[in-house]
Amino acid sequence: MGRWEPGARERLVAAAVDLFTEQGYDATTVTQIAERAGVTKSTFFRLFPDKRELLVAGQETLSRLLGEGIADAPADAGPLAAVADGLRRASGALGPANRELGPRLKAAIAASSELQERDALKTVGLAAAMTSALLARGVPDATAQVAGELGVLAFKRGYARWSEGSRDTDEPLEPYALAALDELRAASAALR
Amino acid sequence: MGRWEPGARERLVAAAVDLFTEQGYDATTVTQIAERAGVTKSTFFRLFPDKRELLVAGQETLSRLLGEGIADAPADAGPLAAVADGLRRASGALGPANRELGPRLKAAIAASSELQERDALKTVGLAAAMTSALLARGVPDATAQVAGELGVLAFKRGYARWSEGSRDTDEPLEPYALAALDELRAASAALR
Repeated sequence: MGRWEPGARERLVAAAVDLFTEQGYDATTVTQIAERAGVTKSTFFRLFPDKRELLVAGQETLSRLLGEGIADAPADAGPLAAVADGLRRASGALGPANRELGPRLKAAIAASSELQERDALKTVGLAAAMTSALLARGVPDATAQVAGELGVLAFKRGYARWSEGSRDTDEPLEPYALAALDELRAASAALR
Repeated sequence: MGRWEPGARERLVAAAVDLFTEQGYDATTVTQIAERAGVTKSTFFRLFPDKRELLVAGQETLSRLLGEGIADAPADAGPLAAVADGLRRASGALGPANRELGPRLKAAIAASSELQERDALKTVGLAAAMTSALLARGVPDATAQVAGELGVLAFKRGYARWSEGSRDTDEPLEPYALAALDELRAASAALR
């Protein structure tokens, strides 16, 4: 992002989600998104390849942070303890703007099969990032897959509750994600 | 499918996977697929909306069978026992042709980001089908999500091993899927 347009990325994401919600994903053009955000179309294309990618712009960052948090967990941490460290690391990257975006993003995704596909790929990608980081710690294959799936479920459930919660406070995402992981861990242990 | 073209669906799927593997997904046209399969282009479009959907033609059937198997499980079956019944029901729908297709399908998906997206959506869709069926049995939300994810992981891992196995025998998919579920159940129970 050019330093002459601070916040262009965040403004474009917010403008796009608003427009998708107001008039639908298919009817929204890159020109409209750029106008609403107050940037040029060429700024849009410097930041995003197309309007769909704009919605998953944070995915690479999230995958990287989840993986780094898992890699940096203490050597004696079990797979879920390492996943918790990944969730802590990634949660720190999401702030009030991400929280506020949640419900509108959810509405836009619910209304567009193209966005549903992109969102599904994101989910699978985040799980793969966690599973890979666990495998690199020497966690056995089946365990790494299960722990990676629980990690992405925890992230999604925690994010949903966080973003649907009260707007009054400046609560971080982290406790929501960790509480969701605890809940899923208990559910797994009780499975029969 | 018209009764005047028996097997057109199966022939089209096999022809498409071969062509995707030989020359790539993007370079393959509907015309080429229809020619290789020995059917007309209009037969193709009567059966599939486009070449991508052809590869996930079985998804609706699989989702339905997984859900029905879970719904029909004994009332006192736990969530994973119900998931096992879903896997039994769905496994019965896949025969030697599906097994033989596995490695070629995997190669085609690995080579195309568009197919990866469609495959990710399929994975998410199968998990959602199982989770919904479990919720309808009164399984609590978090448990139903975890059991649904384990179910789809078991199906994928079982299918991969089945389709990579020896071609000498007529082994069914079922024992592979159930063994994978057992393995994932043990991994979940040991998580910390």
